[in-house]
Amino acid sequence: MQTKGQETRHHILKESRKLFTRQGFRTTSISEIITATGVKKGNLYYHFPSKEELGLAVLVDVRDEFFILLDDSLIGENPIVKVLNSCNAIMGMMEQNNFVGGCLFGNTALEMTDSNSRFGRIIQEVFSQWKSRIERELRQASGAGLLTSPIPANALATAIIATLEGGIMLSRVYKNKNGIEDCILAIRVLLEKQE
Amino acid sequence: MQTKGQETRHHILKESRKLFTRQGFRTTSISEIITATGVKKGNLYYHFPSKEELGLAVLVDVRDEFFILLDDSLIGENPIVKVLNSCNAIMGMMEQNNFVGGCLFGNTALEMTDSNSRFGRIIQEVFSQWKSRIERELRQASGAGLLTSPIPANALATAIIATLEGGIMLSRVYKNKNGIEDCILAIRVLLEKQE
Repeated sequence: MQTKGQETRHHILKESRKLFTRQGFRTTSISEIITATGVKKGNLYYHFPSKEELGLAVLVDVRDEFFILLDDSLIGENPIVKVLNSCNAIMGMMEQNNFVGGCLFGNTALEMTDSNSRFGRIIQEVFSQWKSRIERELRQASGAGLLTSPIPANALATAIIATLEGGIMLSRVYKNKNGIEDCILAIRVLLEKQE
Repeated sequence: MQTKGQETRHHILKESRKLFTRQGFRTTSISEIITATGVKKGNLYYHFPSKEELGLAVLVDVRDEFFILLDDSLIGENPIVKVLNSCNAIMGMMEQNNFVGGCLFGNTALEMTDSNSRFGRIIQEVFSQWKSRIERELRQASGAGLLTSPIPANALATAIIATLEGGIMLSRVYKNKNGIEDCILAIRVLLEKQE
């Protein structure tokens, strides 16, 4: 069971995450966070000494949740099916939010990586870990003769993640799932066995 | 020849664009724009009555420049080569900027489309026009028997743009060209003739 303090921390993280996802980190003010959470300023600063610390904690929270989703969705009868299932699970998550907000990692990558190295490091770590999980499946698929792509596993894993991120962005721009659906179709073709 | 007023307008657009690209639209203040341009506040407001008008003018300016780059780079002995050349030209442009800032359309898409419909409309228009130019080449390639992808031209054009945008984002995150290079490799495979 969570203590009262843990509950408050969790509540602040969830509400701040909504704000950061919808409107970005820099434009979200501490007073907006106070209004959204109903937590007093002193209590907020007790849990997170600065907006930067709060932003980093939100990113770490979303990262942990994302890797749970990724592990849970990397399932199926073979590594190719696993990768495709994980792509579909990510699309499902975006669709659930009606494509509002998009991907917090992608957003933060564009907003913060040039200017804040602590944010940059977490974002790099998320994409690197995600890539290495996909790459591992692709190597297994190659080993089992299920994948004969002319693209090395390493580059293919990067391209799959980039394609998904781009698709999420286009789905957000047009507020429909066409962008990400077209991208998953392309990923499917990239993973088809080349004769 | 430009009049003095046109020169000033042009100068404001170029300097504001650097700021918006590097740090986003919302966090760039009018006083930062005044400092960067050296233009007096009254003169700035004479040319652009609000930060929103300035932001929209910058987007329109970048859009026009982008479509010149796209038209100039959609060249080659056949439609497939044309599309690949345009992707390489976009990568070259990003590399020139050392991947700082990335793609202003992508950034603005993530920052503004949920909250400002005027920005959203320009971004939608840019991606739609870009897509229709790529799609036209893909249809010509199909007609000439150069492309036999299982993905419809319409969806393939979307996936190509999404993959590039995702690659630009990853290149920005890691400050190297691997992301976008891996993506162009994937686009090349998507455009290969399927037997």
